Amino acid sequence: MNRIAVRAAIHVAAVFALYLSAAMLIPAAVDLYFGNQDWRVFAFSALFMGGLAIAVALATQGHAPPVTTRFGFFLVNLLWLTMAIAGAVPFLASSLEMSMADAFFESVSGITTTGSTVISGLDNAPPGLILWRSLLNFMGGLGVIALGLFLLPFLNVGGVSYFKIESSDIEDRPFERFQTFAISLIAIYTGLVVTCAISYAAAGMEGFNAVNHAMATLATGGFSPHDTSFVRYAEMPAILWIGVFFMFLGALPFSIMILFAVRGRFDALRDPQIRVFAGYCIVFTVAVAIYLRVQLDTPFFEALTHSAFNFMSIITTTGFASDDYTQWGPFAVVCIFVATFLGGCSGSTTGAIKAYRFLILFELMANGLRRLIYPHTVLPVRYGDRTIDHDMQRTIVLFIAAFFVIWAIATIMLGATGLDLVTAMTGALTALTNVGPGLGPIIGPVGNFSSLPDSAKWILSFAMLLGRLEILAVLVIFTPTFWAR
Amino acid sequence: MNRIAVRAAIHVAAVFALYLSAAMLIPAAVDLYFGNQDWRVFAFSALFMGGLAIAVALATQGHAPPVTTRFGFFLVNLLWLTMAIAGAVPFLASSLEMSMADAFFESVSGITTTGSTVISGLDNAPPGLILWRSLLNFMGGLGVIALGLFLLPFLNVGGVSYFKIESSDIEDRPFERFQTFAISLIAIYTGLVVTCAISYAAAGMEGFNAVNHAMATLATGGFSPHDTSFVRYAEMPAILWIGVFFMFLGALPFSIMILFAVRGRFDALRDPQIRVFAGYCIVFTVAVAIYLRVQLDTPFFEALTHSAFNFMSIITTTGFASDDYTQWGPFAVVCIFVATFLGGCSGSTTGAIKAYRFLILFELMANGLRRLIYPHTVLPVRYGDRTIDHDMQRTIVLFIAAFFVIWAIATIMLGATGLDLVTAMTGALTALTNVGPGLGPIIGPVGNFSSLPDSAKWILSFAMLLGRLEILAVLVIFTPTFWAR
Repeated sequence: MNRIAVRAAIHVAAVFALYLSAAMLIPAAVDLYFGNQDWRVFAFSALFMGGLAIAVALATQGHAPPVTTRFGFFLVNLLWLTMAIAGAVPFLASSLEMSMADAFFESVSGITTTGSTVISGLDNAPPGLILWRSLLNFMGGLGVIALGLFLLPFLNVGGVSYFKIESSDIEDRPFERFQTFAISLIAIYTGLVVTCAISYAAAGMEGFNAVNHAMATLATGGFSPHDTSFVRYAEMPAILWIGVFFMFLGALPFSIMILFAVRGRFDALRDPQIRVFAGYCIVFTVAVAIYLRVQLDTPFFEALTHSAFNFMSIITTTGFASDDYTQWGPFAVVCIFVATFLGGCSGSTTGAIKAYRFLILFELMANGLRRLIYPHTVLPVRYGDRTIDHDMQRTIVLFIAAFFVIWAIATIMLGATGLDLVTAMTGALTALTNVGPGLGPIIGPVGNFSSLPDSAKWILSFAMLLGRLEILAVLVIFTPTFWAR
Repeated sequence: MNRIAVRAAIHVAAVFALYLSAAMLIPAAVDLYFGNQDWRVFAFSALFMGGLAIAVALATQGHAPPVTTRFGFFLVNLLWLTMAIAGAVPFLASSLEMSMADAFFESVSGITTTGSTVISGLDNAPPGLILWRSLLNFMGGLGVIALGLFLLPFLNVGGVSYFKIESSDIEDRPFERFQTFAISLIAIYTGLVVTCAISYAAAGMEGFNAVNHAMATLATGGFSPHDTSFVRYAEMPAILWIGVFFMFLGALPFSIMILFAVRGRFDALRDPQIRVFAGYCIVFTVAVAIYLRVQLDTPFFEALTHSAFNFMSIITTTGFASDDYTQWGPFAVVCIFVATFLGGCSGSTTGAIKAYRFLILFELMANGLRRLIYPHTVLPVRYGDRTIDHDMQRTIVLFIAAFFVIWAIATIMLGATGLDLVTAMTGALTALTNVGPGLGPIIGPVGNFSSLPDSAKWILSFAMLLGRLEILAVLVIFTPTFWAR
């Protein structure tokens, strides 16, 4: 990276920040509509961020962005940092008197679609601020899908988009130009959010909540306008099952929705990662439903509903909760812990390790065991009908190794800030996987992150960003090679 | 594997069991010397096992063992299972009235040099039984070194022995024949145990304890004749530092001791895994010593002594404790948790992931990150002066992936038996890494495994065996390929 490339990246980020400041006018309008004085917070934030963005954009213009891998990595990091900072401004300016660490944490949690919160008393917060949190989930989700479709596959990070695997679709791809593609993405994504909101409302959810929850559901984000998340709908199974359905949709590779919408093609569903993802969702849901039925004597349909909702929420890295599942007994808690590692499909808004990595990892393990017996056999690693090349095998293994190493480091750092083992370990994990809630009394499904020390909030914010950018896309920035001429 | 190979393996295991039943005469003699009636337990066990062994050996004789990889894997599993069963017989026959699950757990914990115990009230147990536990550590340690030197490297599992890495030593190896090598191994190993016992006794440890602790120290096993392990020596720093020194020796590649003893060569110490291992021992010890000094106001030398002893104990997978370190505050507990993953060097008696795997993993990660920027660069993976080939890279990655997958499965299974998250998670971990103590009130350093349900003890026993045989050497037995013609 040289200075010209850095300038060009900053220019792109500044233009992007201008769009973000325009987005702040939406909560301003909502606050105005509700007659809430907090509209000034967003108007001020929009003016401040917009002015800053224009100034920076003007100061850095004049260089065409270079088309290099390093520029791509640098830009991705810078865009997410820009979103994090722009997202934090309204929190800082708001009446909630949030510290710098709190505002940044909340913003990062939103744009990484994690859904952990440091705000307690959400039920009394101004509606504009509630909407801003949901918009952060919405924009973060849209951003990460765009990243997964347009950029990461070409940087060899974060797996592959559907289009890169399905080479037939590259050859006869449904969109001629980038712009058409981007507009379709936004239209379909928004369409799904609207459908989800209407479904929630039809099942009895309050209108404002339905809109906010729908944005957080499709983004597998998990922000809720209420401190207790979906516990208030614990007795309304229709709402919970609608949540299950749309969280599941949000965890599928987004490209299959585009293919379906544009061509009515269902055969994209043959993607083997979908079977793996659906498989582990069903296994955990049914196992814990049976456990709840047997151990706690819960009626089976109720047990199945809550098990499905909470496991879908954890596995898709959404982070809603319909109950305090830490009270479901040791087997359920251990399952929730393991489910936190899983994640959905590549090209979705989910975080964590993800189904296609497990699929390829198990292929590698089976091959490796076979080679212990027949050392000279060369066996291809299969993914559906296709063979996974060595570069992709390497990146997957690299990701998983980096995941565990960073989890260990973050856990030690959080322990140094004074957090107990379960809070430190599950806090680091839930941040890195963009899930949301951890385990234990502090950061569990009915707790929140507000009582943590500021140092812990900064560490967790960084972990969320690392997880969102598939770890490697951030780590690479910190290597000497990256900055070498 | 065909029936003839299975028969040949059973024959070898039966002859091995005959040696094990002879070993039972040692505790019998000790009980006789102390005038304890329990000598009958060992005399009976020796007769029973010896008779059974002779019968099986006679019934299966007549087939030369085939020299195949599959036979090697099968034999390794069978030998460790034989040790586990033979080791359990005296516990079953003893006056302690142990269940089948308890006896098997205690025996497996001994031969895998884990050191977890289900016996509470060790201080009042017959001396012969105490000695038998220490002998299980001793024989298990000797067995795993022999395995690491003679067999695993040729099966491409469990890394490499020093001799396989240092090809110059293969070419001019110090021992002409297998037998000389095996005798040197036993002599040096026993010599170290005797030196350790004399050192302990010289520093004020009771004679019988010194002998038992020395066997458990060099094997990085961790069985102690006392329920409270080394807490009784908490005020005797000389004893603790002797422990630190000999645990460190026990975690080095055993081959360097042979080279040193035979040739007086020190240059084998250049093996880079030793630097990594010593490095993380020092970092954890010093960091937590400073933390104890600052947070708990412990005098620095005392803090350093206990930090060194307990981290050396955990990192070398020994499992002694000089204090209830779960009371040292969150940072120390989190460090202990992470230290449980580490382990010593290849070719030692330590379990866990081990220093050379971390070294090669970090090389792979650095290479992988560099390749994200320059995708077409081919970079060798270095280990000291040597290049690690693709087969070994693959096996290391395979091991680490299998480690985490099995940890997750074992944690879920333990949760299903009713254990809480911390007990299930750290119990599965400490068994798989052959460390010994877990975290939490039940299986922490001052607790023991006696109150766990039988099902949990069987799961943990299997996990200990998996960990001891480097996971892959067990998993391979369960693949269809292994049993295919």
